[in-house]
Amino acid sequence: MVKARKYVVKNNFQGLPKREDYEIVEYELPALKNGEILVKVEWVSVDPYMRAYNARYPVPYDQFGYQVGLVEDSKDPRFPVGTRVVSHKGWCDYAVIDTNDTKSDAGKVYKLPNLKGLSNSLGVGAVGMPGATAYFGFLEICKPKAGETVVVSGAAGAVGSLVGQIAKIKGCKVIGFAGSDDKVKWLEEIGFDKAINYKTADLAGALKAAAPKGVDCYFDNVGGELSSTIINQMNDNGRVSVCGAIGSYNDMGNLPKATILQPALVFHQLKIEGFLVWRWLDRQPEAFAEIVKWIHSGQLKPRETITEGFENIFDAFVGMLQGENSGKAVIKL
Amino acid sequence: MVKARKYVVKNNFQGLPKREDYEIVEYELPALKNGEILVKVEWVSVDPYMRAYNARYPVPYDQFGYQVGLVEDSKDPRFPVGTRVVSHKGWCDYAVIDTNDTKSDAGKVYKLPNLKGLSNSLGVGAVGMPGATAYFGFLEICKPKAGETVVVSGAAGAVGSLVGQIAKIKGCKVIGFAGSDDKVKWLEEIGFDKAINYKTADLAGALKAAAPKGVDCYFDNVGGELSSTIINQMNDNGRVSVCGAIGSYNDMGNLPKATILQPALVFHQLKIEGFLVWRWLDRQPEAFAEIVKWIHSGQLKPRETITEGFENIFDAFVGMLQGENSGKAVIKL
Repeated sequence: MVKARKYVVKNNFQGLPKREDYEIVEYELPALKNGEILVKVEWVSVDPYMRAYNARYPVPYDQFGYQVGLVEDSKDPRFPVGTRVVSHKGWCDYAVIDTNDTKSDAGKVYKLPNLKGLSNSLGVGAVGMPGATAYFGFLEICKPKAGETVVVSGAAGAVGSLVGQIAKIKGCKVIGFAGSDDKVKWLEEIGFDKAINYKTADLAGALKAAAPKGVDCYFDNVGGELSSTIINQMNDNGRVSVCGAIGSYNDMGNLPKATILQPALVFHQLKIEGFLVWRWLDRQPEAFAEIVKWIHSGQLKPRETITEGFENIFDAFVGMLQGENSGKAVIKL
Repeated sequence: MVKARKYVVKNNFQGLPKREDYEIVEYELPALKNGEILVKVEWVSVDPYMRAYNARYPVPYDQFGYQVGLVEDSKDPRFPVGTRVVSHKGWCDYAVIDTNDTKSDAGKVYKLPNLKGLSNSLGVGAVGMPGATAYFGFLEICKPKAGETVVVSGAAGAVGSLVGQIAKIKGCKVIGFAGSDDKVKWLEEIGFDKAINYKTADLAGALKAAAPKGVDCYFDNVGGELSSTIINQMNDNGRVSVCGAIGSYNDMGNLPKATILQPALVFHQLKIEGFLVWRWLDRQPEAFAEIVKWIHSGQLKPRETITEGFENIFDAFVGMLQGENSGKAVIKL
């Protein structure tokens, strides 16, 4: 019998999640049935959608989320012992996964892509859901052309930092908004043409100075007034990909107001599209192969903020929601 | 020598345009040169974009706008005397049009489409720019499917009233927002499944009751909080066509705030697109032929609010901006 621990969400969050909204439950894993595998979890992901989706689930529920783990026991010949897998089993140290349960939550279980020697943690980051989000959400919706000016908000986050680098690979000029001077410095180190601290800058003026020819594409992670400022500086036929609205996830029942977008939409014939990455689930291997190639060639530098220890997952989650991470926030168990 | 009168805009408007922002200038028309035609104006159009575009033009400028007129003299064999034409020469009673000046403002000059006995005034309405706007802006951007629920704001206006009727022709359920009980009554008479007075209703509640299955397509003429309310009730993969933002045209330098759209955009994977009708200029004949057919078959009932007299164009314009018209506001000279 294997002892396992998992985080159970007990409450619908009010504002920022609190430690007491979670309970760590210890229990004995049952013996494997046919089609099941036992996974020892090695890397756990914390992502903004874990906050946003909280209201959708009846409490209590097991905290969902991506993880990378090692198959320690198997009753599914497709996943023999020693296989590394990515699943959506969430914040736990051991998991029994029913590989035939393809109806349950998005993500299912799949073999870790061939990382060609890169850290396995990338399976929940640049070569996982955030990587696919950046790749498809930017390329498919913004359809950037070389020479265009691209703006990214939440630019130092897991997705934003990849989007900016992909935009550079595609020959664009890239401007990022982030929430600290350290992040601004890092973004310019990894190739952003300009990064702006949205907490201290005159937003409209700083953007005008950085993008004198206007903005063609905007990858939006945050929503709110920053997005209105950016969208109101867009060129004719500009495209906006809306990936998230992390600025409002802690109070979805009481959404903030921001300057309206309709005049800019009409007079500049803009397109704005929101997306969920599941739309391109079948094409994930394409994104992952490309991203691994870019990392190996040095064109893309993924960064991780790594927290150690099962007990610290909650703190890493709240830190991520407060913008403490640069790049992908992951937890090493 | 022909005496002509025209409205000249003297000021950049502050808020609602004022009579003294205009001067009526009387002058003698010059003799025709080769390629020019003399048009006696019969119908003049007032439209929201005349307010919105005011800030773009250095004053003084001749008020632009669509008009239908009769060719009284001609030095262009393509437009012989007696031809009815549509031009963009604006608020005047006679105009000399240089038919070779294809570089000047959108619209140029073209022969009035074959209206098959309908009123020539429709050349600036349902069979003119507003008709093309409704036809392409709705069908091309919303791509409505039979059985879907469509919401139109500014539903009793020139464009909105056509959009709702086109949506019915395409088999959709249609809900309109308008600004008076009389308009609500009229919209339900011409086939809207439900019309709502946005000035008196509990917007979110009234929409939920009218659209219990949610909103699939939204044709936005007004912007602002009404649009945020509607967009926040949209279904997965909903489409929004943004035609105008008349609610903000009188104070474009100080745009209002409204509830943010990003969470709805992401979690329901919505698309929002603004447009200018010039995009489909080459395809106008297709829209006009279809609309004339629908009017003759009784499927589409265009309505006009007609003002008489050159001196009253300004009042008709301001009345339109304040929502006094039902259907297309036109002036008969």
